[in-house]
Amino acid sequence: MRASGCIEHSAKLSAAVHAKAVALGKHVVRMTTAAGSGHPSSALGLGHVIVELMYRRMRYDPADPWNPANDRLVLSEGHAVPIVYAAYADLGGAIGPKSDSPTLLRVDDLPALRELHSVLDGHPNPAEGFPFFDAATGSLGQGLSVAAGLALAARLDGIPKRIFAVIGDGESREGQIWEAADFIVDYRLTNVCAVFSCNGWGQANEISNQQSPAALARKLAAFGWEVAEVDGHDPDALSEALSNAGRLPRPLAVLARTIKGWGVDFIQHQNYHGRPVPAADLPRALSELDATAHRLEAAPVELPGPPPPVPIEFPPPSPRKPVLGFVETLKRCGLEKTLAAGRLATRTAYGAALVALGDADTRIVALDGDVSNSTYSNLFAREHPDRFFECKIAEQNMVSVAVGLAAAGKIPFASSFAKFIARGVDQIDMAGITRANVKLVGSHSGVSLAADGPSQMGLSDVAYFRSMTRVAAGPGRPACVVFHPSDAVSAFACTCLMAQIEGMCYLRTHRPEAPFLYSPDEVFEPRGCKHLRRGSHVTLVGSGFILHTVLAAAKRLDECGVSANVFDVYTLPLHAAPILDAARSSGGGVLVVEDNYAGGVYSELAEAAAKEGDVRVHGLTVSRIPKSARTADELFDFVGVGVDDIIMSAKNLANR
Amino acid sequence: MRASGCIEHSAKLSAAVHAKAVALGKHVVRMTTAAGSGHPSSALGLGHVIVELMYRRMRYDPADPWNPANDRLVLSEGHAVPIVYAAYADLGGAIGPKSDSPTLLRVDDLPALRELHSVLDGHPNPAEGFPFFDAATGSLGQGLSVAAGLALAARLDGIPKRIFAVIGDGESREGQIWEAADFIVDYRLTNVCAVFSCNGWGQANEISNQQSPAALARKLAAFGWEVAEVDGHDPDALSEALSNAGRLPRPLAVLARTIKGWGVDFIQHQNYHGRPVPAADLPRALSELDATAHRLEAAPVELPGPPPPVPIEFPPPSPRKPVLGFVETLKRCGLEKTLAAGRLATRTAYGAALVALGDADTRIVALDGDVSNSTYSNLFAREHPDRFFECKIAEQNMVSVAVGLAAAGKIPFASSFAKFIARGVDQIDMAGITRANVKLVGSHSGVSLAADGPSQMGLSDVAYFRSMTRVAAGPGRPACVVFHPSDAVSAFACTCLMAQIEGMCYLRTHRPEAPFLYSPDEVFEPRGCKHLRRGSHVTLVGSGFILHTVLAAAKRLDECGVSANVFDVYTLPLHAAPILDAARSSGGGVLVVEDNYAGGVYSELAEAAAKEGDVRVHGLTVSRIPKSARTADELFDFVGVGVDDIIMSAKNLANR
Repeated sequence: MRASGCIEHSAKLSAAVHAKAVALGKHVVRMTTAAGSGHPSSALGLGHVIVELMYRRMRYDPADPWNPANDRLVLSEGHAVPIVYAAYADLGGAIGPKSDSPTLLRVDDLPALRELHSVLDGHPNPAEGFPFFDAATGSLGQGLSVAAGLALAARLDGIPKRIFAVIGDGESREGQIWEAADFIVDYRLTNVCAVFSCNGWGQANEISNQQSPAALARKLAAFGWEVAEVDGHDPDALSEALSNAGRLPRPLAVLARTIKGWGVDFIQHQNYHGRPVPAADLPRALSELDATAHRLEAAPVELPGPPPPVPIEFPPPSPRKPVLGFVETLKRCGLEKTLAAGRLATRTAYGAALVALGDADTRIVALDGDVSNSTYSNLFAREHPDRFFECKIAEQNMVSVAVGLAAAGKIPFASSFAKFIARGVDQIDMAGITRANVKLVGSHSGVSLAADGPSQMGLSDVAYFRSMTRVAAGPGRPACVVFHPSDAVSAFACTCLMAQIEGMCYLRTHRPEAPFLYSPDEVFEPRGCKHLRRGSHVTLVGSGFILHTVLAAAKRLDECGVSANVFDVYTLPLHAAPILDAARSSGGGVLVVEDNYAGGVYSELAEAAAKEGDVRVHGLTVSRIPKSARTADELFDFVGVGVDDIIMSAKNLANR
Repeated sequence: MRASGCIEHSAKLSAAVHAKAVALGKHVVRMTTAAGSGHPSSALGLGHVIVELMYRRMRYDPADPWNPANDRLVLSEGHAVPIVYAAYADLGGAIGPKSDSPTLLRVDDLPALRELHSVLDGHPNPAEGFPFFDAATGSLGQGLSVAAGLALAARLDGIPKRIFAVIGDGESREGQIWEAADFIVDYRLTNVCAVFSCNGWGQANEISNQQSPAALARKLAAFGWEVAEVDGHDPDALSEALSNAGRLPRPLAVLARTIKGWGVDFIQHQNYHGRPVPAADLPRALSELDATAHRLEAAPVELPGPPPPVPIEFPPPSPRKPVLGFVETLKRCGLEKTLAAGRLATRTAYGAALVALGDADTRIVALDGDVSNSTYSNLFAREHPDRFFECKIAEQNMVSVAVGLAAAGKIPFASSFAKFIARGVDQIDMAGITRANVKLVGSHSGVSLAADGPSQMGLSDVAYFRSMTRVAAGPGRPACVVFHPSDAVSAFACTCLMAQIEGMCYLRTHRPEAPFLYSPDEVFEPRGCKHLRRGSHVTLVGSGFILHTVLAAAKRLDECGVSANVFDVYTLPLHAAPILDAARSSGGGVLVVEDNYAGGVYSELAEAAAKEGDVRVHGLTVSRIPKSARTADELFDFVGVGVDDIIMSAKNLANR
């Protein structure tokens, strides 16, 4: 039994929460109408949830969103963001870059929603100056994974903070939500609390019965979660359910039954999705919100601000040591025999480099999707087990967990087969928008995988990742840097470069062993390439494992009296001048050879050459869908990038 | 109580099933050792499941895998395929192209596994000549969705066949499995039966407890499935569980507890994954299988072949009618007002075209991911509700369901925002390997979406899809054809072309309305482009919505005394000669303008030009990660593809 004092207290608080939900709702309606677009109805449905979280439950300092001890909120259903903007403005939250005297968001700023020069983007977008968020959201289903990454980082850092993720009911159809649900249970991330906003509507229509509160409750329980189902507009019920966040032996999911368009009568009884209230109807919407307040006996008593973060003493950051060199690292990893053999797969060199980086810097963490014994991230797992996270066969979740880890200051390397990294392409795009400092590693790339067949081969990956290398994520910073090393020495060096570069990188490794092409102290750098062989008739360019085939072809060409330059393009974007210059002084023809589909180095060099038009560039890329073959060479021939293809094309170019 | 005759009968059958599992297991071990790679342990674990399915439960004719009445098997855990090859060879299944006197697979063919000229690819790959399968699998988590597509098609065609999907326990971590589980319940596809092989192991390690049989049973029940858990090496138990397939009011999942490496003692007590038995150990492996047979009192009594498909009378195919023209179709869809206005969004024209195609051909079906009122597939849903499938917010499942529908002869159009179509990139790659006749439609592409911000914008999509346009899926057939229309007339025509082209196509549409550029009877064709404006100083190329900005820039250039050709590149791959020829006779400079990240039309034309080197090609693509803005033009300027950018670049090119 509750004491009557408590009830009174609760009733007062409820009245204040209702009043705040209405006040924020008015901002939501006004700002979306001012913007001429947006999702007021979804935002209104979250009114009480956001008030409960941002004013009462979360322990954080709105004026210092950079405090690592803050509880965090991931708004997975990003289109509802105006309600968060409204609350943050009301609370005087800080915006813009990290600062001791930050700019605070004001209520007057809200009508600039979705303007070019506003930090209030259409969907959560921390990179545009909204540090309350850790990751861009809005492409649905990704937020719970981001929350898991933040929670993992908090555990590593010994911070008792909690991470709240707000997810739509329709959104929970995305499989990634269930990948995250598994991962959170695997790692017992009980500091994560998921709030599902169950308003019953998707965009086009009602949600499926498979996403009803009852179905979600069954599913979440089956996945090992604690579940509480509440009226999402009842302050007491919400408060009670959320008071358990972080306190239970299992992660908590709160199913909040919400009303899309809450408080505005003329939009809440239909599926009013993704459009603002017309300006002419604005007064009516506002007066209906007033009527709602009246009906609920809302009292505009000011709510106290959110409780402060739990004070913690941060240990001094672990000192960073110099990274071991190539030779020392191979010895450290028990791979010294390969030094004598002079052969090693690029994927193995990656794993070894990761160990060395992990030795030197505790921010380095690694994730893998049940193929660590193929990608060689298992070397890191052996040496740094507390910083290795097994994501199992669920690559979408893996990428978004990495985004969460990066937001909390870790440097995550996430690996799988290149083919399966593609599973997370949309998550990778969101990581790009976030400017997340994530490192993606795709092994077994290209057709050299041969026997396993095309279902295991990453082939479009270079085109996809290159598209981002030509886009700025900030001044002088591409949205992605691609590394595609051809031997173990360069793979080692490229992995080390990835850790140094701030921002997204993609490393492409290969299954087969390959002979060393470089001495252990060779230096590699962003936009660089290597002139491996000098010739006077034609210029050949390779990237990754197939470079060895290119070198073999160059030798054979020599025997036919055609002397060829050979370049190793180990990274994109590329400073193409050295290659074009070499070509100008040796016949004017460049032949690019790749073991991937079109859109990679060939496009890069063709674009560079076509600017001036004085160098001819031809390309051999995988010209047909591969199949299985017993050897890489058989398959190179089959798809048109074998030694004979190279020789024929090079001769044609040289003889013009 | 069972009669004793039945028990005797059952015991005899069990002995025969054990013997068959052992015999097939020997083939598995031999063929993977011969290949020097593969996954014998996963295949051995499926021995009894495959015998039960392929010899006893499935109603089909191995010699006529093309019979549409056959029950079908989707091996979602594709790496276990050797056990299916062994059974199919033993049963004399047909391989190669459809024929009245097909080639039958023989046991002697098995050692050619994974050879270049064998149909026995490393993972299921129907396109290489193995028609028992409907889709390439091996990238995990996709098979249940394919099964759903096959089941939907069977219902449309009135065929009482059943679809069996075999899925690994570790594989069930993939979120797509749960998207499919929802979809199958939504559509009450009780003709689907999922068999989970629960051997407890992933590749790198044991599976998570989240994928244990108990957890899977809880989850599947929560998702609305009927669940039976059995010993996967007990013929009677398997038989009894599978006898319910297609007979229950809910879809059936059988959790088969299996043993990875079953029957070969020295590999079954460890995680022996993804490698063949060394040749030296082959005799030992075979003798251990013999010992297993002896222990189980296996009797090499020949099992009868599988029961034949349920005989059905196929109705004559619906006659195909001519497709209505543009004007008639807009009238049919109640859009006649837009004819007078001369303005319509490409996405709306797509929806209208889909209605016309659906009127003309009953094979046309449509899928959408809860955004049909944005993509305008809702026009089709209104007119052909029985052929419209709402996949909700689960794009991976949507793509793979489309693959299943296409395998059964439907022509599926699957639409979402271009950004979210990217969610299914790996599924799309598998569709390419399958040579699936699927049509993908990405709306709201590019930066013209403006206010909603980058989380909703498809930007890398052109680079990704173009990479496949340069790859052959067969003689004269690219793996993908991309369409990127700039106005409603061309969007209508491109949609009609997609239905005619055999194979994968991608249509990119835009949110904003745009004025008509073409007369209703204009003809569009694969590899084509349109010369919209003639000039003598420079050549401008646009694609999609931004073409209107290019045309505006051309007008302004005219005023400055620079006369420009303008080309509309509405499709890739492109026959570039008309553009290069025009450029040669008008200053030698081409400027390509795109509202996407690099890797699209600019790359295509740079590669074509760099072949000869006599035409200079410059490009303006989205040069920075976008954010929200109130108008498309603001954002075009922000990302460097606005009118002023075009004018400046074009002048530079013209003045050289």
